[in-house]
Amino acid sequence: MTSLPLRIGLVGCGTVGAALVELLTTQVPVIEARTGLRLEIERIAVRDPDKDRGLALMPGILTTDAHSVVTDPAVDVVVEVMGGVEPARSLILTAIECGKAVVTANKELLATAGAEVFAAAEEAGVDVLFEAAVAGGIPLVRPLRESLLGEPIRRVMGIVNGTTNYILTRMSEQGVDYEQALAEAQRLGYAEADPTADVEGYDAAAKCAILASIAFGVNVVVGDVYHEGITGIAATDIRYADRKGYVIKLLAVAERFVPELDRDPEPAEISVRVHPVLVPANHPLASVRESFNAVFVEGAAVGELMFYGRGAGGGPTASALLGDLIDAAVNRSKGSHATVGTLRSGRIRPIEDLDSEYYICLDVVDRPGVLAAVAGVFGRHGVSILSMEQEGLGDEAQLMFITHTARERSVRDTLADLRKLEVVHRIGSVIRVLGES
Amino acid sequence: MTSLPLRIGLVGCGTVGAALVELLTTQVPVIEARTGLRLEIERIAVRDPDKDRGLALMPGILTTDAHSVVTDPAVDVVVEVMGGVEPARSLILTAIECGKAVVTANKELLATAGAEVFAAAEEAGVDVLFEAAVAGGIPLVRPLRESLLGEPIRRVMGIVNGTTNYILTRMSEQGVDYEQALAEAQRLGYAEADPTADVEGYDAAAKCAILASIAFGVNVVVGDVYHEGITGIAATDIRYADRKGYVIKLLAVAERFVPELDRDPEPAEISVRVHPVLVPANHPLASVRESFNAVFVEGAAVGELMFYGRGAGGGPTASALLGDLIDAAVNRSKGSHATVGTLRSGRIRPIEDLDSEYYICLDVVDRPGVLAAVAGVFGRHGVSILSMEQEGLGDEAQLMFITHTARERSVRDTLADLRKLEVVHRIGSVIRVLGES
Repeated sequence: MTSLPLRIGLVGCGTVGAALVELLTTQVPVIEARTGLRLEIERIAVRDPDKDRGLALMPGILTTDAHSVVTDPAVDVVVEVMGGVEPARSLILTAIECGKAVVTANKELLATAGAEVFAAAEEAGVDVLFEAAVAGGIPLVRPLRESLLGEPIRRVMGIVNGTTNYILTRMSEQGVDYEQALAEAQRLGYAEADPTADVEGYDAAAKCAILASIAFGVNVVVGDVYHEGITGIAATDIRYADRKGYVIKLLAVAERFVPELDRDPEPAEISVRVHPVLVPANHPLASVRESFNAVFVEGAAVGELMFYGRGAGGGPTASALLGDLIDAAVNRSKGSHATVGTLRSGRIRPIEDLDSEYYICLDVVDRPGVLAAVAGVFGRHGVSILSMEQEGLGDEAQLMFITHTARERSVRDTLADLRKLEVVHRIGSVIRVLGES
Repeated sequence: MTSLPLRIGLVGCGTVGAALVELLTTQVPVIEARTGLRLEIERIAVRDPDKDRGLALMPGILTTDAHSVVTDPAVDVVVEVMGGVEPARSLILTAIECGKAVVTANKELLATAGAEVFAAAEEAGVDVLFEAAVAGGIPLVRPLRESLLGEPIRRVMGIVNGTTNYILTRMSEQGVDYEQALAEAQRLGYAEADPTADVEGYDAAAKCAILASIAFGVNVVVGDVYHEGITGIAATDIRYADRKGYVIKLLAVAERFVPELDRDPEPAEISVRVHPVLVPANHPLASVRESFNAVFVEGAAVGELMFYGRGAGGGPTASALLGDLIDAAVNRSKGSHATVGTLRSGRIRPIEDLDSEYYICLDVVDRPGVLAAVAGVFGRHGVSILSMEQEGLGDEAQLMFITHTARERSVRDTLADLRKLEVVHRIGSVIRVLGES
């Protein structure tokens, strides 16, 4: 098969855009030899055309006018790697109106206006492909959208933020505290000077929204996602978890609750959340180290799956974009486009109504009767204790509990009452423990 | 979108076929609600129509005449789950001639006559989909064929046989020897009464051929794949590996050698092999336990990827078949079919010409001068020793070496000369150590 070239309009040319241009340079002949498909870069919109990107580009290919790229009749597919909601959203919607396929790595946009973009694409009959938006280079979006479309998926859990996984790995393996690990991550370029978006779980929440949308066919936006970060995790939490056979990971969890899961085509009630989790050490997610990402999928038929790889960086992201470009080229050569399916609206179960085991750490006065007082509070709220350990610290002590499965609301009520106890100086970490889906 | 139903002709209805029928029963309405695509089972060819399969089937759907199913004008897609090369090959080729899409889980067939089947499908313009043939339920074939089509893949390494991984996990975690672990695997149904196909690496070799074909676009058959099994692995090997920070796994390895990898669209020289490997304990493949499968992919742009899940069993295999059926239904609704691409012929580099580090275990007489004699043989063949440990056993001793990277031919010559030494009683395990791609 030989077809007309797929002419690419690239919007944005930072690390990811430049990596894509480089990858195309080497791979275009390979792809043509294997498939007959030809890809070529037609135009690139950048902020500063004079910046040295270390790329050998045809003269006149760069422009500062992104709008002219997405409306250019000589462009077949727009690759958007500028990030952020606007002007990316307007440019992508314009490209779709002009009948162009869109490939994007933009998680903020999709977690905010995904349903609008998908609806516009469906209406116009064009591709919107976004493998690079979640878990970087890992082929995940397409397997979920296509291979597992018929699978009764119960839960998707991902380590989808490399920065926090790097920090937690250092804390766990070197025994350093959060601040030291963050400083090291910043020195190595794994964390930004302002790390808020990563360490508070905002970045993971955007990816969680996208994962839930594609896994369950339900429209989820970033604002729907409950999130906690890792800034409160102490070295003692990590040590206690380790002694008990757990590793602490920041997980994005998208879960589906249906009374009769496998027979109900109705919109599901789901949970979408990002928070630290005590993961059993022999669970596949526990072995995901450093800045790697992984997404663990549980389905009624397929059982357990995990997709592992690099969640960020120029090369991996460019690899995902290239996969989407080939997809777009194949679809174009057949006059078809990818089926996004209509995202239905789903009910989000509030975090207070979820059940989990909990790890809870309290700073208390070290004197007789304290445990009885504390245990009494747990008991009054029906939160039963699975295990307890005390670590003495002079006349202060730490009590570390793992509870049986309890309703979040009851745990919050327990914590509120514990705060009123004179013997409790501080409530430290409260971290959910990974349970069955 | 609503379209005509995709009418399925199922050939074979054992564990996998029955699991597919069950999965379809629950998921057909879900798939229709999400995509408008309808799947329905038209006919099922079985050996014994009176056997109780625990399935609620429409009367008259079963037949003993497989040929009538693959030629039935009322069948749009043939799902072949009978296994073996013949009559599966003839039935599939007939189905293709009749213009039907084919979905198969048959690794023996694809590793033997894959190129013939793909060429026939290309000629007829129909789908041949085979997600279930390698690594069971793990979405792997489609990501490799599509998402990673443009990725400069260097190496694919898989734990693709659950039986041997179960045995090695038991040996490693319980310290039992091979016979005990095999007996346990047989008791639990993970290993067959005659375990040869699994433990000697034949099954993994077939999957290796398919992996190499799709990863590199090169025609590889099972006979091209060098293979060793796990029957010779001793408890001492596992213990030594553990002390040195390794886990022993049976890996299927497909590797690509190109002087200038990224710019060469020419057929590559590749290596395809199945053998035990000492895998570093912190490598993601090392944490793949029990009967799970995983495939590790290394690409120049994407970096490291791993796909993990259940490699066998009714549910996971049915899940993969269902993904392919949806693919076939989508393609049919668009009047298109999957692009297999033409498999080129590639040169297979002989095992003797590969380089690796090696673990080598020798039973020797325990007396002064033995190590000097043994080390002299290594030295004469240019095989240099990275580390050595001796374990005394009365007047016998075991010498355990790990070599620096050496050419396989030189190692074989070394072993041949070691056999001639009077002080060497026996050459035990010789196991390759995982190195960089």
